[in-house]
Amino acid sequence: MFYLTAKRPLQSQASVPSGKSHMEGVRGKCLPTAGKPIQCKAAVCRKAGEPLVIEEVTVDPPMPHEVRIRIICTSLCHSDITFWKLKDPPACVPRILEVIPCGIVESIGENVVEVAEGDTVIPTFLSTCGDCTDCKSPKSNLCTKLPFKISPWMSRYESSRLKDLNGDVLYHFLFVSSFSEYTVVDVANVVKVDPLLPPDRVCLLGCGVSTGVGAAWRTAGVEPGSTVAIFGLGSIGLAVAEGARLCGATRIIGVDVNPDKFEVGKMFGVTDFVLAGNNDKTPSQVISEMTDGGADYCFECVGLASLVHEAYACCRKGWGKMVILGVDKPGTQLSISSFEVLQSGKSLMGSLFGGLKPKDDIPVLLKKYADKELRLDEFVTHEVCFEDINKAFDLLIRGECLRCVIWMKK
Amino acid sequence: MFYLTAKRPLQSQASVPSGKSHMEGVRGKCLPTAGKPIQCKAAVCRKAGEPLVIEEVTVDPPMPHEVRIRIICTSLCHSDITFWKLKDPPACVPRILEVIPCGIVESIGENVVEVAEGDTVIPTFLSTCGDCTDCKSPKSNLCTKLPFKISPWMSRYESSRLKDLNGDVLYHFLFVSSFSEYTVVDVANVVKVDPLLPPDRVCLLGCGVSTGVGAAWRTAGVEPGSTVAIFGLGSIGLAVAEGARLCGATRIIGVDVNPDKFEVGKMFGVTDFVLAGNNDKTPSQVISEMTDGGADYCFECVGLASLVHEAYACCRKGWGKMVILGVDKPGTQLSISSFEVLQSGKSLMGSLFGGLKPKDDIPVLLKKYADKELRLDEFVTHEVCFEDINKAFDLLIRGECLRCVIWMKK
Ligand SMILES: [Zn+2]
Ligand SMILES: [Zn+2]
Ligand SMILES: [Zn+2]
Ligand SMILES: [Zn+2]
Repeated sequence: MFYLTAKRPLQSQASVPSGKSHMEGVRGKCLPTAGKPIQCKAAVCRKAGEPLVIEEVTVDPPMPHEVRIRIICTSLCHSDITFWKLKDPPACVPRILEVIPCGIVESIGENVVEVAEGDTVIPTFLSTCGDCTDCKSPKSNLCTKLPFKISPWMSRYESSRLKDLNGDVLYHFLFVSSFSEYTVVDVANVVKVDPLLPPDRVCLLGCGVSTGVGAAWRTAGVEPGSTVAIFGLGSIGLAVAEGARLCGATRIIGVDVNPDKFEVGKMFGVTDFVLAGNNDKTPSQVISEMTDGGADYCFECVGLASLVHEAYACCRKGWGKMVILGVDKPGTQLSISSFEVLQSGKSLMGSLFGGLKPKDDIPVLLKKYADKELRLDEFVTHEVCFEDINKAFDLLIRGECLRCVIWMKK
Repeated sequence: MFYLTAKRPLQSQASVPSGKSHMEGVRGKCLPTAGKPIQCKAAVCRKAGEPLVIEEVTVDPPMPHEVRIRIICTSLCHSDITFWKLKDPPACVPRILEVIPCGIVESIGENVVEVAEGDTVIPTFLSTCGDCTDCKSPKSNLCTKLPFKISPWMSRYESSRLKDLNGDVLYHFLFVSSFSEYTVVDVANVVKVDPLLPPDRVCLLGCGVSTGVGAAWRTAGVEPGSTVAIFGLGSIGLAVAEGARLCGATRIIGVDVNPDKFEVGKMFGVTDFVLAGNNDKTPSQVISEMTDGGADYCFECVGLASLVHEAYACCRKGWGKMVILGVDKPGTQLSISSFEVLQSGKSLMGSLFGGLKPKDDIPVLLKKYADKELRLDEFVTHEVCFEDINKAFDLLIRGECLRCVIWMKK
């Protein structure tokens, strides 16, 4: 196998996978629904932290540059739980949550040429306009024209395509809103996928798994033979391990308070385990001793600002890189002294979506999955049907699952 | 001219400049002082913050791996002022301060082969043992065997070579202690220089000037055509500008509260100036507008943790790199939120001595100076004789000079 390497070509360009669609017959034919509102089922968050309500909603046709998608399946991640519980802005209700689906293009708006009816796609919360400085630069994945924000609207227009049966607006979430049988997404937020690939696997590349793999691959640029430490072996941490393994790291040290995580971690390349909070020594002391000075790359995947200090401390002086992936409460300050940064020769980085450029890098990961190099199957520990969507929340909150796939119809 | 580029050869190796010494006749001949203590004048810090006292001291012969040096001239920088004023550990008295001299090897201890009597050298506070993982790696400048510390002793032994006439120990400072006509330094802390180069210029490469140039060159790896913002145009900030210019940056924006700094800055490549604290807008807002989104590289050279946030904010999202060079009070925490780091795609780095490997990189800078590419002359705004050493402190404290050279004998 070839290791993933961080270097991108100077001129970034989207590559599109090919393959025979099981929807081939549909492609190009206008479905009878095109251009009209669709009435379908969606799971609506009407009050922060309360069970989602499955109700009939109306999904308007796509505006120019937008596509309407029939969702096949979706998943759920910890940031959805965070947003579901959040009472203050940028939270708002009633809202249709979620960003990890795989679906089929039902119809397209004007000026859409990249995808057509019948194409299988995964939406992504990061947009790619393709034209701005960032989209054209191999260094950035943060489109300037359609910037990342936690907006209640579509990415290009300050408006919603979603209504309830009273005609009242339902808010969008991160430009995706996949807890619905149909949704509308900007073409800047979709990646075409080979329809022969299983939708309940490829959907995972829309959020945390890509974030973790990308953090090792694109943000940190993990090199073959290097040592990696990962704080928190939830699904993002495990995805970092998987990414580090694909980059050729030879030692991948997991740190977690739950000793069972070592067995799970081994599936994704974790070679060593440090049980946190159960030792005279801090994890950084243990790791410094194990590695004779610290890990080349450290990833904080828990989202506790207090752990950032610990993860920074276990980076190798002189060249260690530390990547922040966990999200703490907004406003939480880093607990690192400026003198420590100054004299250590270490660097501290963050990355949204693992530094991946969705339209360039997800196809690479899809190919790695098709070639049986990237592991996705192991992330899916549970599945439920759409009616049981609140069970998926329970499973994730109780820590009983890595990823639960929610099937719209099976 | 060739731009400086950050890439080091994989196997790092010290290169030694050649040239005819004005001390040629002396080389190799044992001076009558070799092996014996030398009595000479030194400026001793006997009480924190009080004027240095010039007194007779005894400088012991070098131990194995050490060299005794006759100081030709030295300089003074803000961290000396900080240490001179500091009352608490790691401060201690009586101490001989300073780390920016140029001198001539008077005698060598056992096992010293890299330099000989009569060689012109500049001492550096960072050690290079040449054997450890860090010294062998192109990525690190932080020797593990003889680590950086603010120690009262020599770098290899927990002992002093300096005594007063009562026989009481005088403490070393950062392995150099150049406020003395003679001092002893480990061979791991000296860089040989071409004796034809002016000692009152090359001495500057022992501290802040190298730190600034190195921060642009080695730590940040400033690329040709890029945009740089520098907070604080003191001598370190000006040296960053000089380094950025040598790396081919096309836009170098200085930020300072003193409007006179723009004229000074122009000598070192500053192309634009932002007056801080005198505007409805913060410097980061002004710079974001000037540069359409922020600078590719930002340097904080003031040493205020509160400015770190401002400098971080004016880094270009997606790829901006921010380097911390200013030293705030020990223990001061960074004022950056973890969410900001997470979602910005920026990185934050620190570097000691600008990431320079002294024995590899100072010779490169010396050559750039000899070739009239690196500007050093412009840093020297004042000179005094050794008896007037306390004047050099006054000049620096009052902000009236960039670098004041102190001549031991002229
Ligand atoms: Zn764009
Ligand atoms: Zn997610
Ligand atoms: Zn070393
Ligand atoms: Zn200095």
